[in-house]
Amino acid sequence: MSIEVVRLDPAREQLAYAFGGREPLLTVLPGTVVELTTEDCFGGAVRTVDDLPSQVCAFPYLNPVTGPIAVEGAEPGDAVAVHFADIRPVRDWAVSSTFPHFGALTATHTTAMLHDALPERVWLYEVDVPGGVCRFQARGSEFEVELPLDPMHGTVGVAPAAGEVLMSISPGAHGGNMDTPELRAGTTAYFPVNVPGAMISIGDGHCRQGEGEVCGTAVEAAMSTVVVVDLIKGAAPAWPRLESADHLMSTGSARPLEDAFRISQHDLVGWTASLLGLDALDAYQLVSQAGLAPAGNVVDTTYTMLAKLPKSILGHATAYDGIHSHLRGIAERYLAER
Amino acid sequence: MSIEVVRLDPAREQLAYAFGGREPLLTVLPGTVVELTTEDCFGGAVRTVDDLPSQVCAFPYLNPVTGPIAVEGAEPGDAVAVHFADIRPVRDWAVSSTFPHFGALTATHTTAMLHDALPERVWLYEVDVPGGVCRFQARGSEFEVELPLDPMHGTVGVAPAAGEVLMSISPGAHGGNMDTPELRAGTTAYFPVNVPGAMISIGDGHCRQGEGEVCGTAVEAAMSTVVVVDLIKGAAPAWPRLESADHLMSTGSARPLEDAFRISQHDLVGWTASLLGLDALDAYQLVSQAGLAPAGNVVDTTYTMLAKLPKSILGHATAYDGIHSHLRGIAERYLAER
Amino acid sequence: MSIEVVRLDPAREQLAYAFGGREPLLTVLPGTVVELTTEDCFGGAVRTVDDLPSQVCAFPYLNPVTGPIAVEGAEPGDAVAVHFADIRPVRDWAVSSTFPHFGALTATHTTAMLHDALPERVWLYEVDVPGGVCRFQARGSEFEVELPLDPMHGTVGVAPAAGEVLMSISPGAHGGNMDTPELRAGTTAYFPVNVPGAMISIGDGHCRQGEGEVCGTAVEAAMSTVVVVDLIKGAAPAWPRLESADHLMSTGSARPLEDAFRISQHDLVGWTASLLGLDALDAYQLVSQAGLAPAGNVVDTTYTMLAKLPKSILGHATAYDGIHSHLRGIAERYLAER
Amino acid sequence: MSIEVVRLDPAREQLAYAFGGREPLLTVLPGTVVELTTEDCFGGAVRTVDDLPSQVCAFPYLNPVTGPIAVEGAEPGDAVAVHFADIRPVRDWAVSSTFPHFGALTATHTTAMLHDALPERVWLYEVDVPGGVCRFQARGSEFEVELPLDPMHGTVGVAPAAGEVLMSISPGAHGGNMDTPELRAGTTAYFPVNVPGAMISIGDGHCRQGEGEVCGTAVEAAMSTVVVVDLIKGAAPAWPRLESADHLMSTGSARPLEDAFRISQHDLVGWTASLLGLDALDAYQLVSQAGLAPAGNVVDTTYTMLAKLPKSILGHATAYDGIHSHLRGIAERYLAER
Repeated sequence: MSIEVVRLDPAREQLAYAFGGREPLLTVLPGTVVELTTEDCFGGAVRTVDDLPSQVCAFPYLNPVTGPIAVEGAEPGDAVAVHFADIRPVRDWAVSSTFPHFGALTATHTTAMLHDALPERVWLYEVDVPGGVCRFQARGSEFEVELPLDPMHGTVGVAPAAGEVLMSISPGAHGGNMDTPELRAGTTAYFPVNVPGAMISIGDGHCRQGEGEVCGTAVEAAMSTVVVVDLIKGAAPAWPRLESADHLMSTGSARPLEDAFRISQHDLVGWTASLLGLDALDAYQLVSQAGLAPAGNVVDTTYTMLAKLPKSILGHATAYDGIHSHLRGIAERYLAER
Repeated sequence: MSIEVVRLDPAREQLAYAFGGREPLLTVLPGTVVELTTEDCFGGAVRTVDDLPSQVCAFPYLNPVTGPIAVEGAEPGDAVAVHFADIRPVRDWAVSSTFPHFGALTATHTTAMLHDALPERVWLYEVDVPGGVCRFQARGSEFEVELPLDPMHGTVGVAPAAGEVLMSISPGAHGGNMDTPELRAGTTAYFPVNVPGAMISIGDGHCRQGEGEVCGTAVEAAMSTVVVVDLIKGAAPAWPRLESADHLMSTGSARPLEDAFRISQHDLVGWTASLLGLDALDAYQLVSQAGLAPAGNVVDTTYTMLAKLPKSILGHATAYDGIHSHLRGIAERYLAER
Repeated sequence: MSIEVVRLDPAREQLAYAFGGREPLLTVLPGTVVELTTEDCFGGAVRTVDDLPSQVCAFPYLNPVTGPIAVEGAEPGDAVAVHFADIRPVRDWAVSSTFPHFGALTATHTTAMLHDALPERVWLYEVDVPGGVCRFQARGSEFEVELPLDPMHGTVGVAPAAGEVLMSISPGAHGGNMDTPELRAGTTAYFPVNVPGAMISIGDGHCRQGEGEVCGTAVEAAMSTVVVVDLIKGAAPAWPRLESADHLMSTGSARPLEDAFRISQHDLVGWTASLLGLDALDAYQLVSQAGLAPAGNVVDTTYTMLAKLPKSILGHATAYDGIHSHLRGIAERYLAER
Repeated sequence: MSIEVVRLDPAREQLAYAFGGREPLLTVLPGTVVELTTEDCFGGAVRTVDDLPSQVCAFPYLNPVTGPIAVEGAEPGDAVAVHFADIRPVRDWAVSSTFPHFGALTATHTTAMLHDALPERVWLYEVDVPGGVCRFQARGSEFEVELPLDPMHGTVGVAPAAGEVLMSISPGAHGGNMDTPELRAGTTAYFPVNVPGAMISIGDGHCRQGEGEVCGTAVEAAMSTVVVVDLIKGAAPAWPRLESADHLMSTGSARPLEDAFRISQHDLVGWTASLLGLDALDAYQLVSQAGLAPAGNVVDTTYTMLAKLPKSILGHATAYDGIHSHLRGIAERYLAER
């Protein structure tokens, strides 16, 4: 069977800054491989350490996303699967920065305080894709260190429910700016479909990111990315779920952070119960002993936590009839043939 | 140089249920190896699935700790280091349970709601120390699965500041019931000294625990544990810190969970800055891209988050002049000679 | 000078369920009196104690609002003022209810837990407008009590910034479902203008409401309401502000609740500083000693707190050049002539 | 019947800085009037605007309390009632201040951030007891304003449960530093008894305080205070409750602030249900429509919210068999005879 491959290279004026309320740039059949490009969260406007984001970027034109991509046949109540086949930095540099009143260790517009903003500072990273590293250079001293590349997308999701249109920097039940390093190549993300076609958008590529994205930005980069998109009829999860080679993951995005934790754990307990035929209390117990709970972001309009379960304890059970392996197979064939 | 080894096997009536306000059971010199035993969080009273904790345990006699151990020469402003050399389940069984109005996915006395408590249920685990596994058996169906042993202590800390006496189930700046799986053999924990002698206590052994300890209890077990205790003059951290072979870790315990996150990240930023000679913003940036942020507990009186930094990026810098390696060396000699 | 009076009685199919993304139903000049009607939060579908909201209402068709009303000349950066001249229940009954997984003392989709939903129950109130009371009748016993009428609107606001479209049940910087009893007749609300025309919508009338709206709904009623709408060029507040005969009030809507508190207090400190010519620390001190801090709602998608300052301490200073008194004057003339 | 009156004027070295772990300074029979004096939260060390608290006060010697007062016959499971008969500033001045990393609109040790502390500033208030006012003088400009005196105690409580010893600045289920303006003369506070004698302590007098105590301190003053102490066998509330002439009030102290809200509302729902013979849902509904929800403090180690119900809706029902009226009667007789 041949693989359907389509390409999406949006022009600058086609970039979107929200989830919902947009016409699709592309419509694909389930099972299609989509090669796409994404601009960085600054719209490419921060190119030197002197390009302060608050000066060169204009709210709300931040965090552009590529899409939406409509999936044929997707109806509310279904799930769409987005498998990340490949995520590759486009340039040999990337940037990060602090931003006034944004981040986890600063007063913000929500955690409002009488402090002046922390200084705005930009870091330029050299990106060595063949070498698999990016280079951090301190601004206030001579320190340098290489960090492993671990490319990912901070933002991926679908049109929200209830006709809402949400800024691309907001994570929620529709996905969006979850900012978890788990969204790397090899991972499949599952989203609930809220509108016909689902309307998938992707952006905010990171060469790498720590858990929590503490200062508010990652190693931000334009990306050349390949995803395989699929449809699972009638299987809408309440919140985005992820699957990697080794783990099932539920996400929750909310404030306070314990509510993001609760949402993600509650979803994972229910998912585990249904996969293993357990009652809720037994699944609660099993997740309590076997699960992991890393932070996604603790800086955006809502915070994101993940609940992770090793697939090793699932025995023969597979999520969504093994669609992750199926999509991984397509991705590997595509990559081999490319 | 010979290793000083002492033993602490408290009688049942010697167990403590608080940090602070207790006379030491033992006083040791810095560098001493302490072999000790700890009872499980239920005081050993839950031995079958019919022993409901709310019936067989009596508040506040929960979560007994072994100690305090006074360290000679420890004064306020110093740090004590507790290196976990070995943690070994004593029995061939362990228990876990739900507990009325306790846990992350239930109404509690703090997150007060009009719901009745979730059902109280006990799980009995078979523990196979040589095989390195414990066996989960579902109560509501036939499902069973083996989980790897990963023994740890949920509770370790010192007497609090300001003369406070805090229940052993409360984590805080003095340590206490942080309930992080990182407190396994091979890890060194650093605590601020608040009273002469520091007054270290240890308890709440877990055969293993998921991050967050979602249902409120882990695979609870009495332990035979070996620690190496040391003193670092004038080096009191603001909050407990951990060091493993691969990572530096700062902890924060607070509510809401984002404050626990903030405390831990703030401490790690400061620690990183001081180790690498960075200013605060550069350290903020580096931690943002290189750090991990797993949950400890999201069920206790305060919640615990960890901020983890790979030691690989530290170059030649070492925390506390390499005391972790030094204590690990003592532990390995002890274990080899035992 | 004659008063411009216009009327807005939307048909059922004209009701909106969101802020943003709608064409105006009406465009008015600054200074216009608008007589309008609003349906209750259930769209009028709950009329007996047997009409359970989860059965007779269909998400997302909840909390209908009347509007938007465009204000001529309103541009981003301006403020619009909405003075409530009169709020009058239309029917001789009103309803309240619990709703599955909604409210402050129940597990919700955000504060996710393993509990089943609390029972859904409807209360029907007799409303006696001339007598100024509504009658609570217990469902589980014979108890009855009259409560004073104190009509208000839970929901009032403008189109959000950044092109967002938000469900009418969500409060935020654009106003929306703040659910504070302070939104009664005699109060002026000030909103930032985010889009040309501001696009004011109003709904969710309550015969009365406790602070916090603990169970999730108030004494819900269709209303016949009169507002006076005005424009203040270049005076956009960061968050909605209210002014009554006796108090200035800043609002904040966020989670956790302390962030809603911080936003409201931060805004009130800044407002006080500017009105009295104080520096930020002096205003912080004065608000700390003289301010009030009641809850608005602690049940919606974000929570609302108010920061209130008695106008008695302002001396001759007036907010927005005394526009509140001006609008109150128009309202009184209108009411006298009606 | 004669009134038993005793006096408690602790020497400086008798002041306590914690709840729990102290021997009583005084033991009284139920029904006794106690005349006592309290020092201000700075121990009287801040007397001019140049006395910066961080320099003239030494942690943990902050927020001294007078007591403990043992109540004869008080046993765990009972309630003690503390009726405030009179609260009178001792001096003709009072002070307030910011304090580094303390307050609601600043980074703190818990809400940890990279900001430097806000400036530390002291305000000196003239106190005119006969005139009923205190005078605020701005530091950064010429502004002055008189504020009404409304004397209260920020701190009152009993020894905590479980043998804990808690700093006097921490509010909780034992009372402590709740910092609500409702603790004025005319109010009765009810506390659970956790240890024999209950061990009541009182301090932290405020000439007045805004709700939330935003900057972290109120108009701090030494007080001459009269309380009537009583015992209610077997009636321990879960959390401190207050009763004034017009309102029943439940308190909750926790973080995040919504948990303090939940605790207080949950308690008030239960209290209302038991007083009026309602089931929980009916009481939930009634409190939702009739209750008030002001902030106590949003600055201390835990935050305090109040849930208030007008006694007018209680009909003939009275809390604790009318003990508030009884104690008010004793207070009035005492004051008349004084």
